[in-house]
Amino acid sequence: MGKKRVMVPAESLDLSAVKYEPPVVQGPHLTGFLFKLFAKLVEAPVIGSLMISSMKKQMKMDFLKMTEVPESPMFRPEFPPQEPEPNVVLLDEDCKPEDRTDFALKCLPDYSPPSSLNREHSAFRYWKIRDYAYAYRSKLVTPATVAERIIAIIEELSQRNPPAPLLISFDAEDVRKQAAASTKRFEEGKPLSVLDGIFIAIKDDIGCYPYISKVGTRWLHKVSSDNGDAACVSKLRSCGVVLLGKANMHEVRMGASGNNPNYGTARNPHDLDRYTGGSSSGSAAIVASGLCPAALGTDAGGSVRIPSSLCGVVGLKSTFGRTDIGGSFCDFSTVEIIGPITSTVEDAMLVYAAILGASPADRICLQPSVPCLPNLQNSDIFGPVRLGKYTTWFNDVHSTDISDTCEDILSQLSKIHGCEVVEIVIPELLEMHTAHVVAMGTDMIHSLDPYWEDSGKGAKFTYDTRINIALLKSFSASDYVAAQCLRRRMMHHHMDIFKKVDVIVSPTTGMTAPEIPPSALTSGETNLPVTGSLMRFTVAANFLGFPAITVPVGYDKQGLPIGLQFMGRPWGEASILRLAYAVEELCSSRKRPASFFDVLQAN
Amino acid sequence: MGKKRVMVPAESLDLSAVKYEPPVVQGPHLTGFLFKLFAKLVEAPVIGSLMISSMKKQMKMDFLKMTEVPESPMFRPEFPPQEPEPNVVLLDEDCKPEDRTDFALKCLPDYSPPSSLNREHSAFRYWKIRDYAYAYRSKLVTPATVAERIIAIIEELSQRNPPAPLLISFDAEDVRKQAAASTKRFEEGKPLSVLDGIFIAIKDDIGCYPYISKVGTRWLHKVSSDNGDAACVSKLRSCGVVLLGKANMHEVRMGASGNNPNYGTARNPHDLDRYTGGSSSGSAAIVASGLCPAALGTDAGGSVRIPSSLCGVVGLKSTFGRTDIGGSFCDFSTVEIIGPITSTVEDAMLVYAAILGASPADRICLQPSVPCLPNLQNSDIFGPVRLGKYTTWFNDVHSTDISDTCEDILSQLSKIHGCEVVEIVIPELLEMHTAHVVAMGTDMIHSLDPYWEDSGKGAKFTYDTRINIALLKSFSASDYVAAQCLRRRMMHHHMDIFKKVDVIVSPTTGMTAPEIPPSALTSGETNLPVTGSLMRFTVAANFLGFPAITVPVGYDKQGLPIGLQFMGRPWGEASILRLAYAVEELCSSRKRPASFFDVLQAN
Repeated sequence: MGKKRVMVPAESLDLSAVKYEPPVVQGPHLTGFLFKLFAKLVEAPVIGSLMISSMKKQMKMDFLKMTEVPESPMFRPEFPPQEPEPNVVLLDEDCKPEDRTDFALKCLPDYSPPSSLNREHSAFRYWKIRDYAYAYRSKLVTPATVAERIIAIIEELSQRNPPAPLLISFDAEDVRKQAAASTKRFEEGKPLSVLDGIFIAIKDDIGCYPYISKVGTRWLHKVSSDNGDAACVSKLRSCGVVLLGKANMHEVRMGASGNNPNYGTARNPHDLDRYTGGSSSGSAAIVASGLCPAALGTDAGGSVRIPSSLCGVVGLKSTFGRTDIGGSFCDFSTVEIIGPITSTVEDAMLVYAAILGASPADRICLQPSVPCLPNLQNSDIFGPVRLGKYTTWFNDVHSTDISDTCEDILSQLSKIHGCEVVEIVIPELLEMHTAHVVAMGTDMIHSLDPYWEDSGKGAKFTYDTRINIALLKSFSASDYVAAQCLRRRMMHHHMDIFKKVDVIVSPTTGMTAPEIPPSALTSGETNLPVTGSLMRFTVAANFLGFPAITVPVGYDKQGLPIGLQFMGRPWGEASILRLAYAVEELCSSRKRPASFFDVLQAN
Repeated sequence: MGKKRVMVPAESLDLSAVKYEPPVVQGPHLTGFLFKLFAKLVEAPVIGSLMISSMKKQMKMDFLKMTEVPESPMFRPEFPPQEPEPNVVLLDEDCKPEDRTDFALKCLPDYSPPSSLNREHSAFRYWKIRDYAYAYRSKLVTPATVAERIIAIIEELSQRNPPAPLLISFDAEDVRKQAAASTKRFEEGKPLSVLDGIFIAIKDDIGCYPYISKVGTRWLHKVSSDNGDAACVSKLRSCGVVLLGKANMHEVRMGASGNNPNYGTARNPHDLDRYTGGSSSGSAAIVASGLCPAALGTDAGGSVRIPSSLCGVVGLKSTFGRTDIGGSFCDFSTVEIIGPITSTVEDAMLVYAAILGASPADRICLQPSVPCLPNLQNSDIFGPVRLGKYTTWFNDVHSTDISDTCEDILSQLSKIHGCEVVEIVIPELLEMHTAHVVAMGTDMIHSLDPYWEDSGKGAKFTYDTRINIALLKSFSASDYVAAQCLRRRMMHHHMDIFKKVDVIVSPTTGMTAPEIPPSALTSGETNLPVTGSLMRFTVAANFLGFPAITVPVGYDKQGLPIGLQFMGRPWGEASILRLAYAVEELCSSRKRPASFFDVLQAN
């Protein structure tokens, strides 16, 4: 135990005295035998709790008990009312999802089909949703044909050894049935929306008929019987989407690498020996591979944005409560949202428009502002945007490739779009990381508690998960409340910053895709420093409920994608989507094919 | 560990199959050497956690981990908007407290001074606030004279052996100064409000200048420097109240008996060998003794209502968030309020009117309805009130004296005021009690965490508190979230009941004032079955935030007071105050002098 610390009230904190203190995510990097031994030791009664205490001390996570936080707890993100954003198209939460996608379409610049649709150009290019929609409507292809091609690739992939599935539940017949129904609608000239016939993969912790969620485990689906659609999935279905199956993920969402020894670890399409990032590993990889234009992921600490960044695609985390997480595994979370992973910003807008809408309970207590999208019809209308940058934090990355690439984009945004980069200071990031671990981790433990016996008292989990569970279970009820006090405090700090800037900008991750140690494929691994680097920039959006988006901005020297993150004010999805769209335009020449797709095409 | 249990959604629960299951509050009744030994054992590393596990199992408190509650967490009471009540006087949260007391006065029946004010009648009768106000204004007496009389009694009391103080911080000079200022205002014909010159004691966990709060401990004031007024106290001060000092209480609020070996245990004025109940022991005892007409207490699990009931006075717990708990020791609680303890219902109304007003933070997130008081000017206006009674629960008391006396009042309310008694079923009371212990206990632990080193790692607490701390610290962050899921569930059950009834009625406590074992005076005691009986009817109002009031309705065979509790809908203070006032009128003939005051007068 350290010494007692009394924090001054948030509003009296002297920002000029704040020193950047990176979260100390230390811990052994273990795989193989030592890893298993370590896992068994931390689970042991007395030695285990000593080891956990020591780990927490090493990671500076032991301060909660002796810190007096003057703020009262904020158990879920609470926002003061927000000013409406300029130059947006309002959407109606209560109308049909297919009507909202129509409104979203009206926000987009006019569409002209690229020549590559006719397959004369060999260079790989992601098909976006409007490409499919155009191809279906102009009868270049039918959803049924696309289905057969995707099914063939998925089945081919399933032969791989070691296995590295993008989907861990897949029913070809169900996909054929959906695609046939969509094809029929096009034949009858009655597609349901721009999303009709669009193939979308669903992360395995989000309910999707006819699959029972495994949540990345080997056993959860055997003790559950729920195979219904989650609220978001049911909205997609009513738009005519073809639901492609359940995407691979880090076991029970407890990791940022995407490692999964149960079904095999999904590979990064840009380098098959590297991780995708996680926990929405399969969702990002399947979009990055070009197999489908969109997937849904869940994001409680960066799980949509991290794999999107590492795989070079777009990932949107909406404001807390903006989407309904009903029907997902952790449907009560105070940090988590369901968000789209797409190959382009406009596709993120279309899928976001379809799935948005607060849950009935959130409508009572959150009072969300009216959802909106940026009007991109006239790209000149781009008001002066102030981008907040905390340079020491921004530069705390593994390679200057990351910070330099991101910095370069900021210069272009200033030069071309008149954005202003404003230096900011974000205090107490170290404290926030611990508080977020407590909040997110407790959600995870609570969602698993009823299955404790079914999991063989934890024995059916992978060793990685077992170590995480031992750590997360050690947090007390009082730690939980202390973390919520820090939530109010950090909310104050950030809302103060948002008085001076419109958006906070940073790299999405502190490193590009990490290598997969071969032994980690079978036994998993624990590598907390890597987890820490991956989550360095993502957690504020979860802990405080702000919207955030990652957009690919280039590649490091190894050719691995780099993502830039915009985090906006509460309910400020339109601002960050507008910026992301501008960045995407700036980077259009930098796009290069994902190697995985090349591999697929070569096959 | 028991077996996994999946609860059906609250709205599908079959109420006809619900069986009343009283909370199993078991545990040894210990004082003296065995008690100290027990306390040291539960604090020991391995054996301690085994003992705590076994205690929790015995009390059926171990179900949270393997119960799947389908509801999402509700971290603080959340209410749907409520219909305004009929025949009320609206009060303004934002106006001056002294103006609110003026409005409150207009709700009361006309005042005529009782003949006893002239001290010709020897029979004891509580002086109410309007009696003092009349006496001051008609120059029968001045606040300065009253002050001298009270100071003399308090100083006399402080000579007692063993000590049994009503106040544990008392500064005669400060009281004289306030009384002199008030006297001067009366001389100048400028009293601040009806509360000017009214003596009010403040529970020791509520900030009150010039005292540093001890919160019932021997050491907390030595490590703190805060001697300012809490928000509620400052409102009283601006009304001209003479703040009498800090009232005795159960150490750090962790008990319902009022036992306090640190300063001596306050005695029940109706039987000096019995407990007052707690934790607001001194506040209830000083009002019951007739020394002052009102006191403030805090109520997180019944701490205002239990001692009020046991001491035969009125105790009001307002709706969660209705009063500002800023400046009290536990100022972030999700279950606690500050409420008045008074000798009459009209005094509860006057003090409540002065102190009400949500905190700035609560105004944003709670959206309280406009506060109001019942209009008692015309007592005929008493609409048909439906009183919900869960008979099996109502009758689960130590002696039929309690249930019969309460039942008799219900008959009279039906006969005289046309109330209708409606049989109701409240499911899952056992589960709610555990969930409430987790919520309230975590507040307590969190409020103590920063002082852990200062408390000698717990060694400076009494043994009773140490055992409670060991139990409460054992709850995990995930238990905390599970308890919040039960909060949403129990809210559903209760709001369903409030569709059929206006108020839920029950005895206030399951027993009358328990005896004080002589050994408990020095070493304290643990007696969980007694705690359980005392808290049997009170916790729903805390856990779910409903307003509740206790009003004395008679005496058991030992001559100990019995209290009746009305629990109302959210923001429904007016309804329960109206009922309490009617009951007080019905019982006016039953009032008998408190023996303690007789003792004082005999001295």
